[in-house]
Amino acid sequence: MKNFCFTLQYDGTRYNGWQRAGNTSNTIQGKVEGVLSQMMEHAVEVHGAGRTDAGVHAKGQVMHTKLNTKMTAKEVQAYLNRYLPQDIAVVSAKEMDDRFHARLQATGKRYVYRVWTSDVPNVFSRKYMYTVTEPLDLEKMQQAAVLLSGTHDYRAFCGNSRMKKGTTRTVDSIEITHKGGELRFVFTGNGFLQYMVRILMGTLLEVGTGKRKVLDVQNLFKADAVRADAGYTVPPHGLILDEVFYEK
Amino acid sequence: MKNFCFTLQYDGTRYNGWQRAGNTSNTIQGKVEGVLSQMMEHAVEVHGAGRTDAGVHAKGQVMHTKLNTKMTAKEVQAYLNRYLPQDIAVVSAKEMDDRFHARLQATGKRYVYRVWTSDVPNVFSRKYMYTVTEPLDLEKMQQAAVLLSGTHDYRAFCGNSRMKKGTTRTVDSIEITHKGGELRFVFTGNGFLQYMVRILMGTLLEVGTGKRKVLDVQNLFKADAVRADAGYTVPPHGLILDEVFYEK
Repeated sequence: MKNFCFTLQYDGTRYNGWQRAGNTSNTIQGKVEGVLSQMMEHAVEVHGAGRTDAGVHAKGQVMHTKLNTKMTAKEVQAYLNRYLPQDIAVVSAKEMDDRFHARLQATGKRYVYRVWTSDVPNVFSRKYMYTVTEPLDLEKMQQAAVLLSGTHDYRAFCGNSRMKKGTTRTVDSIEITHKGGELRFVFTGNGFLQYMVRILMGTLLEVGTGKRKVLDVQNLFKADAVRADAGYTVPPHGLILDEVFYEK
Repeated sequence: MKNFCFTLQYDGTRYNGWQRAGNTSNTIQGKVEGVLSQMMEHAVEVHGAGRTDAGVHAKGQVMHTKLNTKMTAKEVQAYLNRYLPQDIAVVSAKEMDDRFHARLQATGKRYVYRVWTSDVPNVFSRKYMYTVTEPLDLEKMQQAAVLLSGTHDYRAFCGNSRMKKGTTRTVDSIEITHKGGELRFVFTGNGFLQYMVRILMGTLLEVGTGKRKVLDVQNLFKADAVRADAGYTVPPHGLILDEVFYEK
């Protein structure tokens, strides 16, 4: 039995997210498992590091799977790239020791959210950027980004109202950079709740447009804060799972 | 009557090229004319600098159109960007003097052809790059590129067998650069025949894979050379009209 680790890129536009759920075959996980099951001639399960939502992209999703095969990691990678749809690719592959688990051993993740701020549409990146043409105050968003970072109970930023587990997370940094007509928001942290990046984004954009005061975001960590107090959930297509971190 | 000049970007994936032909509405020209005709409440004609083929993209297509309107160039641009599909955008607009003609006054054009050379598919640029996984000899292609540049009768590189007009053109340069898994071929010249860039590309790739000798490409300018002597026509999706040049 070999334990393979693969790094995946995908354009999430036409998928119902990473996670297979019952008969939902139109997921990234479902597509990958389908190809591996065909290769192995029996059902294969894969485990992804992050459960990206419908429409969210990935440059550095990580997954592992255990296969009883003589094939090398590179050979399995080549097989996957041959049979996967064009919008999913395995960009690296290696064999790990038996204990490696893509999700449980991940120490952190980096997500990038791209915002296009120009009146002139961006034709070539239109599927990977969210367009906001209202003027945005970058400095205020950067101040709010500092306040929204740290170790907090991010309950108000969780899109799953039935979340029973702990909602405390550490966001190491939220960096905002500006280049041409694009604003790039980079979120690095030890873990993110469902929709958390997109709700943080909506909150930051409300600060940027003046709908919400910078200092107001501190209240979102108070004990009585609820989901409705935080910002709106921005659309998925601007979001990309950029990298998953592991201990050396 | 105002003479407007617009620079357009488009993702050519789902279009039958630039030029409207009879009832073919699924062209870039047809889409632009449709929106302007709606705005003016009468049929409007636009004139593009380059007739990009089906599936070819543009970052810097230029067109002009004469409109009897009080609107400014920026206002017409905003109207177009509001009603055009998401894969077509007007990125700049200005009013020109009455004599300006986008095609007749163009002094040159730059086309870029992108080739992806890695076994690992490129998910995010897959619609804008042609994948060639056979090993390519960059140095030999660069030597052939020099021989294919200059002022020549490019008849053997013309996809239109009924071409009656002169087929002599000047290709100022064909530059090939390598970055990561991508090879970028930049063609600059005073004008290009139908499919000429794509046939030059096919010829260069045949040199790169060793199917054709470097010095052999010189024969393609001989008086008896025909289309069949040159290389294959590469697919359109790697090609982009990058810029159109005018005298200052």
